[in-house]
Amino acid sequence: MKDLRLDRFLADRVNLMAASEIRELLKITEGRKVISLAGGLPDPQTFPKDELKGIINKILSENGDRALQYSPTKGIGELRSELTNFLNCRGVPINNSDDIIVTSGSQQALHIIALTLINPRDYVVMELPSYLGAINAFRLSEPNFVGIPLDDDGMNVDILEARLRRLYGEGKTVKLVYTIPIAHNPAGVTMSLQRRKHLIELSEKYDFIIVEDDPYSSFTYEPSDTTSLKSLDRSNRVIYLSTLSKILAPGLRIGWIAASKEMVDVFERCKQSLDLHTSTFAQFISLEAIKSGVVKSVIERAKVIYKRKKDIMLEALEKYLVPGCWWSKPVGGLFIMLRLPREDLNTSKMLFEAIDAGVAYVPGGSFYVDGSGANTMRLNFSFPKEEDISEGIRILSSVVRNHL
Amino acid sequence: MKDLRLDRFLADRVNLMAASEIRELLKITEGRKVISLAGGLPDPQTFPKDELKGIINKILSENGDRALQYSPTKGIGELRSELTNFLNCRGVPINNSDDIIVTSGSQQALHIIALTLINPRDYVVMELPSYLGAINAFRLSEPNFVGIPLDDDGMNVDILEARLRRLYGEGKTVKLVYTIPIAHNPAGVTMSLQRRKHLIELSEKYDFIIVEDDPYSSFTYEPSDTTSLKSLDRSNRVIYLSTLSKILAPGLRIGWIAASKEMVDVFERCKQSLDLHTSTFAQFISLEAIKSGVVKSVIERAKVIYKRKKDIMLEALEKYLVPGCWWSKPVGGLFIMLRLPREDLNTSKMLFEAIDAGVAYVPGGSFYVDGSGANTMRLNFSFPKEEDISEGIRILSSVVRNHL
Repeated sequence: MKDLRLDRFLADRVNLMAASEIRELLKITEGRKVISLAGGLPDPQTFPKDELKGIINKILSENGDRALQYSPTKGIGELRSELTNFLNCRGVPINNSDDIIVTSGSQQALHIIALTLINPRDYVVMELPSYLGAINAFRLSEPNFVGIPLDDDGMNVDILEARLRRLYGEGKTVKLVYTIPIAHNPAGVTMSLQRRKHLIELSEKYDFIIVEDDPYSSFTYEPSDTTSLKSLDRSNRVIYLSTLSKILAPGLRIGWIAASKEMVDVFERCKQSLDLHTSTFAQFISLEAIKSGVVKSVIERAKVIYKRKKDIMLEALEKYLVPGCWWSKPVGGLFIMLRLPREDLNTSKMLFEAIDAGVAYVPGGSFYVDGSGANTMRLNFSFPKEEDISEGIRILSSVVRNHL
Repeated sequence: MKDLRLDRFLADRVNLMAASEIRELLKITEGRKVISLAGGLPDPQTFPKDELKGIINKILSENGDRALQYSPTKGIGELRSELTNFLNCRGVPINNSDDIIVTSGSQQALHIIALTLINPRDYVVMELPSYLGAINAFRLSEPNFVGIPLDDDGMNVDILEARLRRLYGEGKTVKLVYTIPIAHNPAGVTMSLQRRKHLIELSEKYDFIIVEDDPYSSFTYEPSDTTSLKSLDRSNRVIYLSTLSKILAPGLRIGWIAASKEMVDVFERCKQSLDLHTSTFAQFISLEAIKSGVVKSVIERAKVIYKRKKDIMLEALEKYLVPGCWWSKPVGGLFIMLRLPREDLNTSKMLFEAIDAGVAYVPGGSFYVDGSGANTMRLNFSFPKEEDISEGIRILSSVVRNHL
């Protein structure tokens, strides 16, 4: 019997599905002695294992029949209520728990947004650099990406305005702007309050949607204003995403979208075909972990650990890196961005050599929708052990030196 | 500030997203005293709550750091190995654990298949009736559905062959055939072995893919041949799906796809953008539940419960329903299909009246891709309490009587 020839059966959109460099890389390093500064994993020290034992025993005793059963697509009501309180306390105003849908991690939130809001050729604004998971999710809907550079105050909203003026002058319209305003991944910067207000004004003037992705605002290492775009929104233009992945455990895959009820209803219709609903059991665990204060204590513990690790990485960069390299001084989040001194250096090509030498990172090129960033890389400091951070940077600097 | 006008922002494909009648219905009945014969929920009596407490305590003690962390898109290796054994023991031959990808319920498996294999206007064959979740997932890719009727021996493969001959004669090709060969949802029938073999021959002759959805083969109530299509496949044409939802707990959202490694690699690339990976924690729980024999004991317990409930429902139908009604005598699964005596009766319209009278079901129309089936309904017997089954059918029969 002749085997099926798969290439003739694949849908055209498979070409749009990037094999994420980050996850491919996780595979390459598997089983090798490599210090990984790639990935964006939380430190497992922060996982509240003992507290979860108690929580889960209680759930199975008191609510087992519901926690193991099918549940509504939008998420269980108690979790949506608890998230409403949680967000309101953190300066993200939510009127009603019906304005929230629970998702299977915020990656699914991004996929739902791509499916429900983006048509082929729609203009979608992304920061340069931006989160790879968002770029990949949106790409499936074949938008025209518009890249807007970042600086120490976040997305350069003046450049955005100039670009909008030009696009609208040509009769084009922008459908949505995706941003990580607080503690940006990978850039480590926070958008200034003035720019946040300006962005909101632009969204009203030019009539576009803002997707505010907020996984890291619990981890700011300097006193800073974390006013959410959502709290500045007066016209239901802001779609707010967040997740428990960094403040409880990524293995539960619990994220959410907060938006107008009207939008949430559309997201719900979409999610139904994607996975019916997010794990009921993980939702009950999340509910109890927020309610009992476990999440709050994880945040406090993690923030101390990550600040220390960040400082260790910054010191090591200072100590080892050759002159001419630039790196971000993150005000929050889990990453440092490193730029090599020459434009012709390619961190993708350098990666295998780095892995052979014993260190892994994520090449920066794929974070830039405009094809730039080939001489940048993203370094994660939340996951590696403290002693490995310095050693990893030492190895990395010698690999870089070889290329200069 | 003028509120965003959402309708102008929605992607065109939102029109393809059906609000599933089943799930909308679950909402309507919420908080009312209605006997629900809708849904397809397992009986919570079958949930192994105490066993899960032990399993989870062990996981958190011994493997907590991994179980709460991010994990590979394809699924954790140990679960894929365990599923390989599990399937091999059940007559579904899998060569290698790399031929399996873990999904967030089998609904996600269907979504992945729709995204990776179906282009707009591709011909996709569905049984009449078929599983609503599959119809909805596939519809997002805008296929041309071809409906093939079922009888007591499952899909009528002779009719399929005639249809294939006609389509191919017109220069058209079929990309995939979706079937639930064993203990069909909603029809309750099993495809005869002879037809299964014939279907495999056709897939080779006409060069199409078979999607074999197998959520119910653990629940057959009469001795019957459950040879999988996958075991008859000689040319990597069969994509096999199944789930732990009915044999452990749907709240965990653990399903999987077994196919050629080449296909699984494409599914993995796709899944990456959908949700990164399925809950690591739920995967560890599933792994231990299979390995320790808990799943096996759930199957044994559930099978006895469901057979008894099925018999109760059949007796009640016999006792109460007016002459001229037809219903299936399921050889397996969780459902009975009921057809009312006149073609002009519409079970969708009758539903609200039924809910007012105190019973809910799923109108059959949405299970038929050809627009037929308006006078049918699906009745679930796995979830309702035994005493409610008779009472529900009694109420239903009086609603039906009012319409005759």
